Amino acid sequence: MSRYGKRADLIVHEHEPFNVETCAAALAEGPVTATDAFYVRGHGRVPEIDPAAWRLRIHGLVQRELELSFSTLREAFRERQVIATLQCAGNRRAGLMAIRDIPREAPWGPGATGTATWTGVALAEVLALAGTLEGGAHVGFAGADECAEAEPAQRFGGSIPLDKACRPEVLLAWGMNGEPLPAVHGAPVRLVVPGYIGARSVKWLERIEVRTHPWHGYFQHVAYRLLPEDGTPGPGAGMPLGLVALNADVLTPADGETVAPGPVEVRGYAFAGGERSVERVDVSLDGARWSQAELLEDLGRWAWRHWRITLELAPGDHEILVRAWDSSAATQPEDEAALWNPKGYANNARPRVRVSARA
Amino acid sequence: MSRYGKRADLIVHEHEPFNVETCAAALAEGPVTATDAFYVRGHGRVPEIDPAAWRLRIHGLVQRELELSFSTLREAFRERQVIATLQCAGNRRAGLMAIRDIPREAPWGPGATGTATWTGVALAEVLALAGTLEGGAHVGFAGADECAEAEPAQRFGGSIPLDKACRPEVLLAWGMNGEPLPAVHGAPVRLVVPGYIGARSVKWLERIEVRTHPWHGYFQHVAYRLLPEDGTPGPGAGMPLGLVALNADVLTPADGETVAPGPVEVRGYAFAGGERSVERVDVSLDGARWSQAELLEDLGRWAWRHWRITLELAPGDHEILVRAWDSSAATQPEDEAALWNPKGYANNARPRVRVSARA
Repeated sequence: MSRYGKRADLIVHEHEPFNVETCAAALAEGPVTATDAFYVRGHGRVPEIDPAAWRLRIHGLVQRELELSFSTLREAFRERQVIATLQCAGNRRAGLMAIRDIPREAPWGPGATGTATWTGVALAEVLALAGTLEGGAHVGFAGADECAEAEPAQRFGGSIPLDKACRPEVLLAWGMNGEPLPAVHGAPVRLVVPGYIGARSVKWLERIEVRTHPWHGYFQHVAYRLLPEDGTPGPGAGMPLGLVALNADVLTPADGETVAPGPVEVRGYAFAGGERSVERVDVSLDGARWSQAELLEDLGRWAWRHWRITLELAPGDHEILVRAWDSSAATQPEDEAALWNPKGYANNARPRVRVSARA
Repeated sequence: MSRYGKRADLIVHEHEPFNVETCAAALAEGPVTATDAFYVRGHGRVPEIDPAAWRLRIHGLVQRELELSFSTLREAFRERQVIATLQCAGNRRAGLMAIRDIPREAPWGPGATGTATWTGVALAEVLALAGTLEGGAHVGFAGADECAEAEPAQRFGGSIPLDKACRPEVLLAWGMNGEPLPAVHGAPVRLVVPGYIGARSVKWLERIEVRTHPWHGYFQHVAYRLLPEDGTPGPGAGMPLGLVALNADVLTPADGETVAPGPVEVRGYAFAGGERSVERVDVSLDGARWSQAELLEDLGRWAWRHWRITLELAPGDHEILVRAWDSSAATQPEDEAALWNPKGYANNARPRVRVSARA
C-alpha cells in the first residue's frame, strides 16, 4: 500500500504534489475503478480539512449568498448518485512526448482516467436556492489546495458554463464508490463535472462563484488550454479545455507484451465525453479490415464503455489498432503526431499496441 | 430561377423528389444562406397543405392530447428566433463515392448544408402544455410527405431524445430568414433541431408523439444509420445518426481552380454540431506547418463559423488542407477512405482542395 491508501501498483509521477496513475491491469478489472486504484492529479499538498468547521460559500451573481455546513448540504438537498468517468486532460501525454519532448509535464500514460460512483447533491439545487442573477453565465469553483506551480501561487480553481452547472449530473460529492470521499480525492466535498476534463472537478471545494465570465485563475486562463503546435503558453493563449473528446485505449494486452499464438482477448475502454455516448469500437490488425468489439456493461451516459474482442494472432509481431465512434458518428483522428501541442493535452488519437505472438 | 423559387445555380441531384445542393460560391456569400440558395433534401413530393385546415396533433405519452391550429400555435406560445445550421447526413458523400461507388445515393458535395434564421415556437413549450408522462424518453415527428423510396412506402418521420426536445433551441418553425417558410422547406410548420442531422428537422409536420423508444419508421430504423464498411443496411443495423460531427469545408477557391500566384484568400465553413462550438481552424499547404484561419462572425452556438485566411501561393500546383477543432479539443479524422460506409453518411474528413497558381 502506498500513500493515501493507494495500491502499490499505481504509477507514481510525483510524490508532492501527489500524482499517481492507474496501471492498465487495474483499469481492466472492471468498468468501475476501485478507489484504492483511482488516479490522482494533484496540484498542491492535500489540505487537511475539519468537516465540522468546513463551510461552502456561494456568492457572486446570486440573489442571496449562502454559507453551507457539511451537515446542511447533506440534509437540505436530495442525495444523488452518478456513475461518471473522470479523465485528466493530460491522459496519454506520453504518446505525444514520444514524438517530441514536453518539458516540465508528467508523462501520463493511458491511466489518468477512471470511473467511480459519486454520491452527493446536485449543484443545480444549491444554485437554485441561491438564485442566479441575470448576467450569470459561468460558475467558478475554488478549492482549498495551495498550488505553488501556479503563477502567481494560488488555490486551485476553474469554472464551467452555467448551462452545464444546472444539469442534474453535476454533483457536490462526498461519497466515492459507496464510501466517504477520501482526503486525497477532495474530502469533505468535491465537485464532479461529468463529461468535462478532470481539472474542472475541483477538489476540497470551498467557494462557488456565479460569474459573467470564465474563471480567470491560472488553471483555466493559463493552464489547461490547447495551443497550436507552434503556440506559446500564456494568459488567454489557446482554447480553454472543457468537454472531453472521444477517446479510447487498449488495457490488455500491454504494449510490447508477448502472448501465445491463437485466440487473444483484447480489452479496453472508450469514452465519448460531453453528452455523447460510445456507439461502436473497431479493432484491426492491418488498418484495412476492422471488426467490431463487444461493448460491455452500459453504466449510463456519463461513464466510459469497456469493450472486448478476441483476435486470432498468427505467430509473429502484430500491431493492434483501435478506433471508437461516438453518437455523432465521429471517430478518433489517426495521426498522433498531428495532435502534438506544447502542453501535451487531449491526446485522443487511435490507440495502437504492439504484441508478439510466440509459442 | 429553377423550381420552387430556387436560384438557377443550384446543383440539381433529383427533380422528383426535389433534391438540390447549394453551390460553394453561394455558401461563400455569407454565413446566413439565402433562402433561394438553401439546399433541399426531399424524400417525397412536396405536399400542398392549406394552413387554415392544418392541425398539429400531439399525442402518445402525454397527460392531454393536443390538436393545435396554425393560429393557435402562433398565438399561444412565445415567438422565438434561432440561427441554426442544417446539414444533411449525406453532405460530402461525393468524397466517399470517389473512393468506392455508393449505388442509389445522390453524390452530394459540400453544399448539402446551410444556415438560416428560423422563426417559430419552442417545442418544449408545446410539450409542457401537453405534459409528458413518465416513461416518455423520445419525441417522434411525422410529416405529410409520402415517401415511395421507403420500404414500405410511408410518410417521413423521425425522433429525438426527450432531453433534446425540451431544450429551447428546438423549434416548430414557420419562418425562414424573416419570410414565411416556403412550401419546399416544410410550410406551414417544420421542426428545426439544431445540432442534429437535417433528417430530424421534419418538414410539413403533422404529428408529434411522445414515446418510450426511438422512431421505428424507415428513416430512422433503416436509413440514416452508420454501418461498418462491410455492413449491410437493414432494420436496426448500424448506429442511428443524430448529432452532427465536427465538419469543415473549403468554399473558395474551388477544387481544381487556377488562381494567380501570390496572396490567395481561402474561405470556408466549420460546423461543430451538437452542443459544441468551433474553436480553431487550421490551414496548411504541406500537412506539416499549419496556420490559424480567422474565425468570422459568431452567430451563436447553433450556427457554423465561416473562416478565412490568406495564403501565399508560389507558381505551381498546391493542395490546401484544412482541419477544424471544436470546444472538446476534437479535430477531424485525416483519412477519408477510412470513413467510407455503405450509405455514404457523415463524411467529416479533413477537406482538401487542389489549386494551380499560374500567372
